[in-house]
Amino acid sequence: MPKKTNLKKKIKKIFLKKGLSLDHSKKCADALINAELVGAYGHGLSRLKMYCDRISRKLINPKPKIKIKKISQSISHIDADNCIGFVAADIAIKKAIQNAKKTGIGLVAVKNSGHYGLSGYYAEQAVKKNLITMIFTNAPPAIAPHGALKSLFGTNPICFGSPSGSKAPFILDTSISMINRGKIRYAEKNNEKIPQGVALDKFGKPTIEPRKALEGVQLPIASYRGSGFAWMVDILSGVLTGSNHSGKVKDPFVDFSGPQNVGHLFLTFKSNLFQKNYISRMKDNIRTIKKLPKLKGIKRILYPGENKYLRYKKNSKKNISIKKNIQRDIKKLLAN
Amino acid sequence: MPKKTNLKKKIKKIFLKKGLSLDHSKKCADALINAELVGAYGHGLSRLKMYCDRISRKLINPKPKIKIKKISQSISHIDADNCIGFVAADIAIKKAIQNAKKTGIGLVAVKNSGHYGLSGYYAEQAVKKNLITMIFTNAPPAIAPHGALKSLFGTNPICFGSPSGSKAPFILDTSISMINRGKIRYAEKNNEKIPQGVALDKFGKPTIEPRKALEGVQLPIASYRGSGFAWMVDILSGVLTGSNHSGKVKDPFVDFSGPQNVGHLFLTFKSNLFQKNYISRMKDNIRTIKKLPKLKGIKRILYPGENKYLRYKKNSKKNISIKKNIQRDIKKLLAN
Repeated sequence: MPKKTNLKKKIKKIFLKKGLSLDHSKKCADALINAELVGAYGHGLSRLKMYCDRISRKLINPKPKIKIKKISQSISHIDADNCIGFVAADIAIKKAIQNAKKTGIGLVAVKNSGHYGLSGYYAEQAVKKNLITMIFTNAPPAIAPHGALKSLFGTNPICFGSPSGSKAPFILDTSISMINRGKIRYAEKNNEKIPQGVALDKFGKPTIEPRKALEGVQLPIASYRGSGFAWMVDILSGVLTGSNHSGKVKDPFVDFSGPQNVGHLFLTFKSNLFQKNYISRMKDNIRTIKKLPKLKGIKRILYPGENKYLRYKKNSKKNISIKKNIQRDIKKLLAN
Repeated sequence: MPKKTNLKKKIKKIFLKKGLSLDHSKKCADALINAELVGAYGHGLSRLKMYCDRISRKLINPKPKIKIKKISQSISHIDADNCIGFVAADIAIKKAIQNAKKTGIGLVAVKNSGHYGLSGYYAEQAVKKNLITMIFTNAPPAIAPHGALKSLFGTNPICFGSPSGSKAPFILDTSISMINRGKIRYAEKNNEKIPQGVALDKFGKPTIEPRKALEGVQLPIASYRGSGFAWMVDILSGVLTGSNHSGKVKDPFVDFSGPQNVGHLFLTFKSNLFQKNYISRMKDNIRTIKKLPKLKGIKRILYPGENKYLRYKKNSKKNISIKKNIQRDIKKLLAN
């Protein structure tokens, strides 16, 4: 188990070797280590090799010329010049925070970006500045639109953040996919079934066989409603921003025909715009809901983001345990 | 079957008799007839008697002094003085449109309001002005937070609207409830079962018996994710705006202990902020998705709002058929 600080240094070094600036390398290492600490392993070091491969293939630009266009005091448009998503998202949320601090509200659109990991990681930055935030990003095809037999929407997460009045911010960060594709792959490897209602086979029939699901399509949460949410996210982060949309965002693991051109949208506004005592109102809201009678077996009602915060706190106290194949990746990438 | 124009005149007359101004009465009649025409009967004339009862009991203020506070060029806060929700929402969306036209983005919060019918009805106004909009409102308790055995969140709809490039606007207007409470009541009356997974009995066990479901709690869409969305809407429309929240919004049908104090939030921004050819990008997006191979039995893939528009168009050509009990309500209210 490598020590956190050592591990972070190694990751930073890898990105430096790949040609990223010190500042950008640090941002990437921070985001990846954070994903490990909150337990979002699918957005953590398991993607390190993918990012590096795409840099080597010139599909991620290590020396981007990022342009920030001012639309108004509140609104900015960022052309991320195909940089790594972490860097684009970090610049964008900081700009959105700045705009909201200045005018009360900020809206920042990003084009020509890539996968940026967890939306919640950026939401936290805004929440720490007492802002409310909504963040949208599209992603490569994973989910079939309602009525279709072909994947087109990404897992297109919707993220909402608000100060909670306690250390754990209120952060809802939810994909609109019923199940993570990684979980289907895991079930296939381990000869397990997948739950009912999460996928269809290639003929459009419901299946619990992981292999058939991988050949078929994944389903959105809440049927046509989830499909509608995914479509909304594709519009907000793809159509609006000038990025790829309607299934054209490239899968970073398998599609090397060009940069991903993911789009993001960051909305921020001051939480005390309308009520000076917003924080005490939030505390009251959370307290009331936590006090409700609980279902059998439920000890505590948690608000979105609370669990992740608790995991982060717990994991921060110990060293990070990483899988052997990822350790091998890191070793190779350092040696190259 | 009363003629539309006659029916609208009657509804307007009823609100005039209840003390509303001509302008406000017209707004109410327009909104209620629109709900009938799009087939959202639960938000239409079935609620007419309820609104009138609450006006008679002085729980809806027929002569409100609505205050619009300017927070910035983009941001406004409306105290609706417990007026009927239709009027508050109409003023709010018009203000949000004005702000967005002026600065690119508008944010309008409303407190001391009531049930306003369909979010999509207001979204349409913004979309017609080439704006993108998001609209949130809370509602009386109907749904249990994830892990809880008591209803607290309302059906808390999330609404998103965008110009589509064709006559039918892209309008996603979705409650976060698995099933409409009216549908459970209907099943009870007709000795039918309700679907699995939409409700729990009072002991927290899944039930398909409508009576047990009515004693128990309804479930949100997509389990903990839907619960998170409902919580987000309660924060955005209740906590943020200065309205009732965390289960305190009053049920307009049964709770006469005071005004509802519903809250709403209207976000608007120009659709061509970042891409001049937004409309042609939207057309391309929709065209691509509509062309996908379809599931068996599916003829066309529809985008959110398309179905409602088609229903509206079809119903607008004929007279409105209303149920006998509602006809009786109208007759009585006109005679009073």
